[in-house]
Amino acid sequence: MNFDEKLLATKAIYQGRIINVVEETVELPNGQQAQREIVRHQGAVALVCISDEDPQRIILVDQWRQPMRKASLEIPAGKIEAGEQPEYTARRELNEEVRLQATSLKKIAFFYTSPGFADEQMTLYLAQGLKPVEKKLPQDADEFLQVEKLSMEQADQAVASGRICDGKTLMGLWYWKILQAKG
Amino acid sequence: MNFDEKLLATKAIYQGRIINVVEETVELPNGQQAQREIVRHQGAVALVCISDEDPQRIILVDQWRQPMRKASLEIPAGKIEAGEQPEYTARRELNEEVRLQATSLKKIAFFYTSPGFADEQMTLYLAQGLKPVEKKLPQDADEFLQVEKLSMEQADQAVASGRICDGKTLMGLWYWKILQAKG
Repeated sequence: MNFDEKLLATKAIYQGRIINVVEETVELPNGQQAQREIVRHQGAVALVCISDEDPQRIILVDQWRQPMRKASLEIPAGKIEAGEQPEYTARRELNEEVRLQATSLKKIAFFYTSPGFADEQMTLYLAQGLKPVEKKLPQDADEFLQVEKLSMEQADQAVASGRICDGKTLMGLWYWKILQAKG
Repeated sequence: MNFDEKLLATKAIYQGRIINVVEETVELPNGQQAQREIVRHQGAVALVCISDEDPQRIILVDQWRQPMRKASLEIPAGKIEAGEQPEYTARRELNEEVRLQATSLKKIAFFYTSPGFADEQMTLYLAQGLKPVEKKLPQDADEFLQVEKLSMEQADQAVASGRICDGKTLMGLWYWKILQAKG
């Protein structure tokens, strides 16, 4: 079955610092037209960080999330800046947020976070061979965060209590469970 | 550490059918102000569907995703309509998209899809005891989709080829892997 939608027109709605919004008119497979509301975002990366010295704990950052109106405990992550390759962004965020560097980054997933209305792409890495950075990069002026290290049991409790409540962090925890199940 | 952000002002930017956009001015922990761009969305549900008759296959739907500019193979999902409880939405989407009903729905995850800029919440269910519906609900007029059933190996191939490329579906597959590892 061919169910491609054909783009007929794009109307710019909003140009922000983080997101742009457009309305697209598309032609449906049955010839009729529909409107699609689309948020454009430059993409992001996130990192599953488990250090060699403490392989029973995952490294998380606690930070305020205004869309949630509360703090949220998440795996380190950040937006891809203009011109950056995702792996560069991952290494930069690893330094800025948790002051670590990795001997290797393994790409473990690539996905759209919310394909119904947004084009945001997320690349998820497993960071291995972690050690403290030699040179600390400056942190974002409007970003305040606190690093925490949780065992699997503590992480499961944080999910149950709602402190962990975002998709990429659940994916990080589930990936860790799959790794442990493999032994 | 207290890193709460205090809401100072909200500016409405866009009111669409699916999303609203607002700009919020917040006071940071250091007393300075920052702007947050926020997409408001009524939330959604998604379902991991593995039938008793065919426990080695997961049920997916192929559909066009205009934000991606391509088709995408995803677990059944849909937006929560005004006044709906998430479980009601899940049963409705299960009927509309794959023409199945479930004897039980188990909530397996609740998460924000993209907490940096959106308040969209997703509830993920495991649908058990699946059988064909007695009464088919009408499908959305602008939604065209095709049901597919994939083995774990086929699903892994679809991830590798990019046919499966959204967060909730990867979570569904990873949850299935964890279930299988538990035996």
